[in-house]
Amino acid sequence: MFKKVCIIGCGLIGSSIARAIRKNNLSSKIVSSNRSDSINKKVLELKIVDDSNSDTKKIVEESDLVIIATPLSSYEDVILKIKDSLKNGSILTDVGSVKTNVMNLVEKNVPKNVSWISSHPIAGTEESGPEAGFSELFENRWCILTPSKKASDKDIKILETFWKKMGSRVDIMDAVQHDYILSITSHIPHLIAYNVVNTTLNVQDKKESEVIKYSAGGLRDFTRIADSNPVMWRDIFIQNKKNTSNMIDNFIVNLEDLKKAIENEDGKKLEEIFTKTKKIRKEIVKAGQDVGKPDFGRK
Amino acid sequence: MFKKVCIIGCGLIGSSIARAIRKNNLSSKIVSSNRSDSINKKVLELKIVDDSNSDTKKIVEESDLVIIATPLSSYEDVILKIKDSLKNGSILTDVGSVKTNVMNLVEKNVPKNVSWISSHPIAGTEESGPEAGFSELFENRWCILTPSKKASDKDIKILETFWKKMGSRVDIMDAVQHDYILSITSHIPHLIAYNVVNTTLNVQDKKESEVIKYSAGGLRDFTRIADSNPVMWRDIFIQNKKNTSNMIDNFIVNLEDLKKAIENEDGKKLEEIFTKTKKIRKEIVKAGQDVGKPDFGRK
Repeated sequence: MFKKVCIIGCGLIGSSIARAIRKNNLSSKIVSSNRSDSINKKVLELKIVDDSNSDTKKIVEESDLVIIATPLSSYEDVILKIKDSLKNGSILTDVGSVKTNVMNLVEKNVPKNVSWISSHPIAGTEESGPEAGFSELFENRWCILTPSKKASDKDIKILETFWKKMGSRVDIMDAVQHDYILSITSHIPHLIAYNVVNTTLNVQDKKESEVIKYSAGGLRDFTRIADSNPVMWRDIFIQNKKNTSNMIDNFIVNLEDLKKAIENEDGKKLEEIFTKTKKIRKEIVKAGQDVGKPDFGRK
Repeated sequence: MFKKVCIIGCGLIGSSIARAIRKNNLSSKIVSSNRSDSINKKVLELKIVDDSNSDTKKIVEESDLVIIATPLSSYEDVILKIKDSLKNGSILTDVGSVKTNVMNLVEKNVPKNVSWISSHPIAGTEESGPEAGFSELFENRWCILTPSKKASDKDIKILETFWKKMGSRVDIMDAVQHDYILSITSHIPHLIAYNVVNTTLNVQDKKESEVIKYSAGGLRDFTRIADSNPVMWRDIFIQNKKNTSNMIDNFIVNLEDLKKAIENEDGKKLEEIFTKTKKIRKEIVKAGQDVGKPDFGRK
């Protein structure tokens, strides 16, 4: 499909893309660039790329597809480094979780003959780093493409095919809609999980061992999500701060409402809300976006 | 171990106990009582009990161990029905998630020669009903015992052995401490999950299909917990309303604090909090209270 693909940032997502490209024969050559020499060494040891070093400006040259897979806060730095080395007619994409700021930032800097099409694979685990990646990560997960105005239909089609060959299903969405929807399905759930675990740490006094022992009552699920990459999530919340902030307000209004119902022992209202929330689970499982087994099939 | 055990309420927990008793040979006879005739029929079909009917008063007679496994709001009704049929020298327990109110209620009504020792197995899935149960549910999970003042040490020891034979680890705790710790490790996580999903339903307008498609970004985990039994959880929050209410207040204070940090783009503070919350996950996995595989081992 491509002669050369360059992945900038081989963490969980970047390294999973490298593995999926290799597995599905999507490029003759795969290279990556990481700031840290130990990561460059590691991805070569893992044999998931053909070459890797910290000279980003140089290593992107002649790439047909360049994928930025670093935290959002480093995009400016990355784009300034690579803009003069991007090949004519190539595609530039990323895998970031927030779009509005990034679309403008990159569009301003990218050369005319490069198609800038942002990607967001809705996939991941709580782990980080190149060793955590795996080639099946994108299978049956949605990938949202947000093309810049200047991107050609042909290139959008090519990038769509690329993600589909890695197992993804593809949607196209503008940046504003993307950032709104993802604040609901991803950003707020992560923020709330961090806040549940943080609140636990704040109140537990010397009861840490008890909190851990009885965490199977529900808390343990939140600790998995709160185990996600701190730098990545720091950047996501800041870049999507308007939506996040609005959704926090909605969340608190509803929580105060639940609190009032509990204090008033309004069992009817509580039961109504808890029954209403059951329906969406079935639809998520039916849509293939989660396993249908109880307790995620954990043993 | 026992000649006759009676389980009142064969839902997920009650039916799992019946199965675990059978599997581990803990009683010659197992009976159950359910208000609904279809449940009584179902548990006989499933062959997890030897007899089952809605005449609770009658069927508990001669039982060495009686286990109340109904929603908390029906305890008063149950205890008034059975108090005159309880066998001298028998043990009465339950599996409820809140203790303070229940301890007083039962203690007031239980005959002198019956040992009332409350149990709380920290185990379950999001499913409900007798078909959802399985005999391994309690393996490696903690069960907290809260004995009444009048319970004999001998009977506490017997009940402890009973839970251990079903695979549980056992702790003894007073009602006040129990209700505080469980509000942290179980009640608040459930309430927050219900509130995340409810907030999603309130804001989604006509975007339900998008919310479902992109739920793998984090939301799907909350929908699993919010799929739990509405009646059971309604009762838990109302019976533990003081702790729940205090914890909601703590939670909101911390969430407002996170919101401020996001609005001020205070990356340092966010990263600090998100790094602090990582530690507890490792300890939970190390303590055997969750699987160590990324994403709970889901595929």
